[in-house]
Amino acid sequence: MARSVKEASIKLAGAGTELKNKALTLIAESLKNSKEEIIRANREDLLRSEKENLSAPLLKRLKFDEAKIEDVVDGIYSLINLEDPVGKTLLSTELDSGLELYKVTCPIGVIGVIFESRPDALVQISTLCLKSGNSVLLKGGSEARETNRILAKVIVKATEQAGIPSNWLALLETRSDVNEMLKMDQYIDLIIPRGSNDFVRYIMDNSRIPVMGHADGICHCYVDEDADVDMAVRIAVDSKTQYVAVCNAAETLLVHEKIARDFLPELKKAMDQQQMDLIGCSQTCAVIPAILASEDDWKTEYLDYKLSIKVISGLDEAISHINTYGSGHTDSIITRDKEKAEKFMNYVDSGNVFWNCSTRFSDGFRYGFGAEVGISTGKIHSRGPVGLDGLVIYKFKLIGNGHIVTDYANRSRSFKHNKINKEFSL
Amino acid sequence: MARSVKEASIKLAGAGTELKNKALTLIAESLKNSKEEIIRANREDLLRSEKENLSAPLLKRLKFDEAKIEDVVDGIYSLINLEDPVGKTLLSTELDSGLELYKVTCPIGVIGVIFESRPDALVQISTLCLKSGNSVLLKGGSEARETNRILAKVIVKATEQAGIPSNWLALLETRSDVNEMLKMDQYIDLIIPRGSNDFVRYIMDNSRIPVMGHADGICHCYVDEDADVDMAVRIAVDSKTQYVAVCNAAETLLVHEKIARDFLPELKKAMDQQQMDLIGCSQTCAVIPAILASEDDWKTEYLDYKLSIKVISGLDEAISHINTYGSGHTDSIITRDKEKAEKFMNYVDSGNVFWNCSTRFSDGFRYGFGAEVGISTGKIHSRGPVGLDGLVIYKFKLIGNGHIVTDYANRSRSFKHNKINKEFSL
Repeated sequence: MARSVKEASIKLAGAGTELKNKALTLIAESLKNSKEEIIRANREDLLRSEKENLSAPLLKRLKFDEAKIEDVVDGIYSLINLEDPVGKTLLSTELDSGLELYKVTCPIGVIGVIFESRPDALVQISTLCLKSGNSVLLKGGSEARETNRILAKVIVKATEQAGIPSNWLALLETRSDVNEMLKMDQYIDLIIPRGSNDFVRYIMDNSRIPVMGHADGICHCYVDEDADVDMAVRIAVDSKTQYVAVCNAAETLLVHEKIARDFLPELKKAMDQQQMDLIGCSQTCAVIPAILASEDDWKTEYLDYKLSIKVISGLDEAISHINTYGSGHTDSIITRDKEKAEKFMNYVDSGNVFWNCSTRFSDGFRYGFGAEVGISTGKIHSRGPVGLDGLVIYKFKLIGNGHIVTDYANRSRSFKHNKINKEFSL
Repeated sequence: MARSVKEASIKLAGAGTELKNKALTLIAESLKNSKEEIIRANREDLLRSEKENLSAPLLKRLKFDEAKIEDVVDGIYSLINLEDPVGKTLLSTELDSGLELYKVTCPIGVIGVIFESRPDALVQISTLCLKSGNSVLLKGGSEARETNRILAKVIVKATEQAGIPSNWLALLETRSDVNEMLKMDQYIDLIIPRGSNDFVRYIMDNSRIPVMGHADGICHCYVDEDADVDMAVRIAVDSKTQYVAVCNAAETLLVHEKIARDFLPELKKAMDQQQMDLIGCSQTCAVIPAILASEDDWKTEYLDYKLSIKVISGLDEAISHINTYGSGHTDSIITRDKEKAEKFMNYVDSGNVFWNCSTRFSDGFRYGFGAEVGISTGKIHSRGPVGLDGLVIYKFKLIGNGHIVTDYANRSRSFKHNKINKEFSL
């Protein structure tokens, strides 16, 4: 199966923008036309999962009703309007007369994606892969088995109608399928696991295929001595409470010792309205009532109505704390001082570094990427929210007219290396 | 040690172009001033290795004399003139009034490089890392122990004089150091192994750190029916013989069946002058004298005066042969037909795809990158020759003025997502 997906990926790589958009349009239409069948399959999954005592929040994520189908269909229409990430010329150089080098974006090839229970993830991920010209092996949550089957069927049939080989998408259903997939480095170019930190590490430890995953989201807000207290409270509250169960929610607040007495009581008032548990260092506890923090609190992603607070000596300690305990996800400084903001953004080693705004902005939709396959905390290939541009790589295309290296080695010719500003075309 | 290199990497990431170029200048000067000491250390390595019966070609690679020192010093001066890859704005978007997003290149962090016996590799790799703002852990061949020690010492001292923390570079000396390094995924961001295919796979199997390596270089020339026979012979000879022991030398020649009778005898004449062993499929052997090829020949990187030849039915078989047996390195089509060239370049899944020129052009110096850390046959992050641009990643920098996500979630504000054409600055 992996081999046939690889073969399809070679054909898909040559598909033009028009063909891919036609296929996306057909997918959107087919999803609308099949909505009764999809909702029926989803009801089966819901009933079975209820019997198996799946928790209420997970049942909510599993539910795929008319409104959600409309959402994913809208998502596909916006994807159609996004620029094709394939075929962009990144660099063009005249190496010598008649010898031109182009660096041109192309699909990665075959992407294996392992995702959680939400069936809308299947549609989003597969359509992002299609638009970027990649074949995809998908493994969803087993709770969503029936929904995933019908969605995959509808998508494959629609793309086949458009003229794209049907084996560009394949659905895996068991854990042993996943373990097989991890060994297929000759057919699979990238694995994107969406799940817990431990799960991502398990994948990394058991495959030589490159992994683009995200580990914990331990995000920080640093309230500098020069911060506007009202703004700092507003940003801290939004970063922590706007949606606590997500990776870009703040977990730790770092507070400059010179502003702690002004800021912390105001923060406490605002957080009390949200029934937030505050966990603080001893200096914090000396200013406001809070649970005394232990070393572990600085390393914990609560994903809950809990916030840890540390009073620190200043910017250098903030940078060093974040680089030690953070997960390289998203960190924000609140200050009026431009130079401090600049230093923070240069030295904090995270994919997303913010000045005077909420960590919750770290997201593909909010960044204007249209959609995302996930947020990468790795530092290779793609970092931060990963949209279409994160799913392509490039080829060097060199056009000559009988040019050979011998002529340059014996110095009868020499390189020019002129940058030319030209899109690739033959 | 890895932790201290990581700490230095945070400081180095903030170093400006001027500081890095000053450090590079001091390295170049120090290498010139220390040449006697370096040559003395290298003589020790040569003597010891001769006693240990190191082969003549390896002894040649190990030798580091005045000419080679001049070469690496020249290399450093060209590196100084190259554009700083750090701090480039790749994307700028106004998300909303006063809320601006920038995607800005930055160093990867800490790079672990394992390289072969050539001591010049140590200088090239470490100066490329310095210019791209990365710290580096280096492991060279044990034959070059004394030379590597003195080179590392000179480089570290020079950079320290310039004001860069001395622990940005560390030298590993034993295999057990390497095995320790593979476990340090909290401190090391990327491993670049230069060596055999088996060695690269060993690294991939034993580390969760991302690996940018190159496997075999099984490169092809495809001589199409429309090829100019003289040009095809010239390119085939150059691709194979200009330097047989390197990864971008061609190993297999694919020949369209309609041109085989015209082309192969001319090729044979030219290859006989180079005393090349020709290994051919049965159709090849029916036209010219050659050793009969086995299935294994299509998968073999000879790195020697041997060339395998297969007569095929046309472009589709060429593409499918290369995608099956090739290593994704460099493949060239020789044809007069633009459409066939375009199809070949679209569907051959290699980092470097050429039209009417020699596979030997696939190289960072020839591409005008100034230098390379290696040629990647992976498809993630960097592909083909990897120069300065392949050693950086990016950060998203978001600047607000108290912006919070709640306002967008409750629709009291909405995103603009206007592309702005602005370099990042505060």
